[in-house]
Amino acid sequence: MADPNFMPGCLTGVKVLDCTQFEAGTSCTQVLAWLGADVCKIENPATGDPGRRVGSSKPHKDDPYFLMYNSNKRSVCVNLKDPRGLQIVKDLAAKADVFMENFAPGAIERLGLGYDVLSKINPKIVYGQVKGFGEGSPFSKNLAFDMIAQAAGGTMSITGDPKGPPVKPGPTLGDTGTGMLMCISILASLYKARDTGKGVRLNIGMQDAMLHYIRNSFAVTHKSHEAAPRAGAGSISGGNPPCNIFPCKPGGPNDFVYIYTSRANPNHWTKLCEVIERKDLMTNPKFATREARVQNELELEEIIAQWTRQRDKYEAMRLVGAAGIPAGAVRDTAELYADPDFVNRRMMQPIQHPEVGAFKAITWPVSFDGNKVTVKPAPLLGANTDQTLKDWLGFSDGDLSKLTAEKVIGPNMVA
Amino acid sequence: MADPNFMPGCLTGVKVLDCTQFEAGTSCTQVLAWLGADVCKIENPATGDPGRRVGSSKPHKDDPYFLMYNSNKRSVCVNLKDPRGLQIVKDLAAKADVFMENFAPGAIERLGLGYDVLSKINPKIVYGQVKGFGEGSPFSKNLAFDMIAQAAGGTMSITGDPKGPPVKPGPTLGDTGTGMLMCISILASLYKARDTGKGVRLNIGMQDAMLHYIRNSFAVTHKSHEAAPRAGAGSISGGNPPCNIFPCKPGGPNDFVYIYTSRANPNHWTKLCEVIERKDLMTNPKFATREARVQNELELEEIIAQWTRQRDKYEAMRLVGAAGIPAGAVRDTAELYADPDFVNRRMMQPIQHPEVGAFKAITWPVSFDGNKVTVKPAPLLGANTDQTLKDWLGFSDGDLSKLTAEKVIGPNMVA
Repeated sequence: MADPNFMPGCLTGVKVLDCTQFEAGTSCTQVLAWLGADVCKIENPATGDPGRRVGSSKPHKDDPYFLMYNSNKRSVCVNLKDPRGLQIVKDLAAKADVFMENFAPGAIERLGLGYDVLSKINPKIVYGQVKGFGEGSPFSKNLAFDMIAQAAGGTMSITGDPKGPPVKPGPTLGDTGTGMLMCISILASLYKARDTGKGVRLNIGMQDAMLHYIRNSFAVTHKSHEAAPRAGAGSISGGNPPCNIFPCKPGGPNDFVYIYTSRANPNHWTKLCEVIERKDLMTNPKFATREARVQNELELEEIIAQWTRQRDKYEAMRLVGAAGIPAGAVRDTAELYADPDFVNRRMMQPIQHPEVGAFKAITWPVSFDGNKVTVKPAPLLGANTDQTLKDWLGFSDGDLSKLTAEKVIGPNMVA
Repeated sequence: MADPNFMPGCLTGVKVLDCTQFEAGTSCTQVLAWLGADVCKIENPATGDPGRRVGSSKPHKDDPYFLMYNSNKRSVCVNLKDPRGLQIVKDLAAKADVFMENFAPGAIERLGLGYDVLSKINPKIVYGQVKGFGEGSPFSKNLAFDMIAQAAGGTMSITGDPKGPPVKPGPTLGDTGTGMLMCISILASLYKARDTGKGVRLNIGMQDAMLHYIRNSFAVTHKSHEAAPRAGAGSISGGNPPCNIFPCKPGGPNDFVYIYTSRANPNHWTKLCEVIERKDLMTNPKFATREARVQNELELEEIIAQWTRQRDKYEAMRLVGAAGIPAGAVRDTAELYADPDFVNRRMMQPIQHPEVGAFKAITWPVSFDGNKVTVKPAPLLGANTDQTLKDWLGFSDGDLSKLTAEKVIGPNMVA
């Protein structure tokens, strides 16, 4: 039985000073918080992380977007333009195991919180930076968002219809994809720092991160000396037909089932012929061998589509999958969000947020001895300022009142 | 100056028993190897990881695909069907800090290497499993490959032209994307195990992993109660036009530049008008406000395209980017692979592999104090069998000769 309040506590006692915003940095510290670190998100007292308002139709209320990347964290508002505010952040850095930022190039150094400064205050700090382009790149001073990384990093060039223009992969690989690689490096560096007592400056360019996710395509390019192609729903490195989506009832925009017969397992193809009641295809010279199926792929796909069109995508997935053939209904986000399977398995967790209200949070997909991490709502702006400054720095109520009155700490939201 | 032989050594002394194949599991242990762990890849003596031959036109030679996910590892061939071979793997597990597998559901337990067995031999072992679907899912017994996870996990539904069918994102997010989340969980669990001496069974479904990368789209669905749309090259959550790719000279399939003006920074739009020498647009009521630009987006895109079509994508990126506006040339894998920038920064590293020959390896994108991990060629099948059994288990030359002669250990490749 899964524990409904489970926390893995892997990083109990690890303090993270989180100067991130939007997604590439926040997705990284989000995972650290889920894994048990004490993540203190520093925000400016006036507006906070601009990600709080991205896409929000209510200008002073947090958007679900923000909740996705900031649950289980503390929010602490500090005015970095006040020297006392800057000193507070340095004092927090002295206590922290990890520092993380994804400001525009050069901004954190101009704020006076560069690695040269913080590593003197705290030599064991693991200092992470996400930028658009890697250090030494001709574009290292350029701004980037997810889509720029996906353009410059090659992921768009291999996505889309072979006859059409490049398409942006829907997943925010430039952001969360980069954040995950930084998270791995932080955890490995923390592991080392326990022995050595020495920190490190970690830096990743979002463009470079994209290369990590398309190494198959570079393997293709290594052999062909040409750009890896766009393949629609198919496989860039070629495949063993059938390997595509097939239309299902009732014909909506996502009513398709993916069917894939593996080259490594010739049974997939023969079993598929059985499932669609077309055993004749096994001996038909047009389809009997992989080479023949590559040659006659479109004709083969139409034969399979004649079978899938008579079924909805779930039935098709069930029948094909039960025969041991890799198959997947193409599911849209509304279908997935409404599917009770994810709540039953605690992959999605209903929570209440003071501004967003009832919200189905998506948790860390990895289970620990069968348990999923419990999501706590993202903090309102500055909600944990006082408590964190007490916990981390031992501030008194008097200190806090004075600093609040003088707008060194917040929140102090602009109307 | 970057160190040309740099190794981060974060995981020095950590032993990983690697029973992975293809990509979802191998991508995870690949990163552990790069970070300094001693990764011992167990392969069957006859054929090894089927990933060695994926896409290979030379049936008995390793493919570049395999090199991408198995560098810096050791290869050890053990015949698991021989009870002595199985015992060797259990003895290795007794010495290991981490065990990792991505076999078909139920296979590792049938082999006699389930968590119940290995955790008794070694209570501190961190045991990682990647499957197609999460534990407790109605599809938990189904096979899955990258494309099945991307169909069932929603990433295809949000990728493609709004009027066209779903498209598979080119990046192998179902494989490497899942492997990265497992890697994070392994590292965090290792950190905890140092204190507690207790291991854990980690499990992830590739379908669930996809949800982690499309949380923005679920935020959209939370608000709209509808499926997040496909947006071509644009942004699923809407945006601040212009936010798209624009055609460039000479008009090849990837001759586009991405230009994105951020809602958070109104200067992006006005500066763009200056760059394309169309200051008149700033005051034109059709384009003066974000709302107006949303309304007249197609007309605006054509105006910008008139400027981009006169330039190649690199010039366009340079001019727009230099003005502080996020911009990125759409680069294909051949362009990226040939760009000396990546070799200069050691993001790509020329290596020699005994079968593949000269090969440009892609390393871990994160830099450590300015240094990139040095890639070592992936091992030939069974290349490290003897040395590893000496190092980990203290086998003698006599033990090894006998076990080799009796085909308990290998390699023993089938012709």
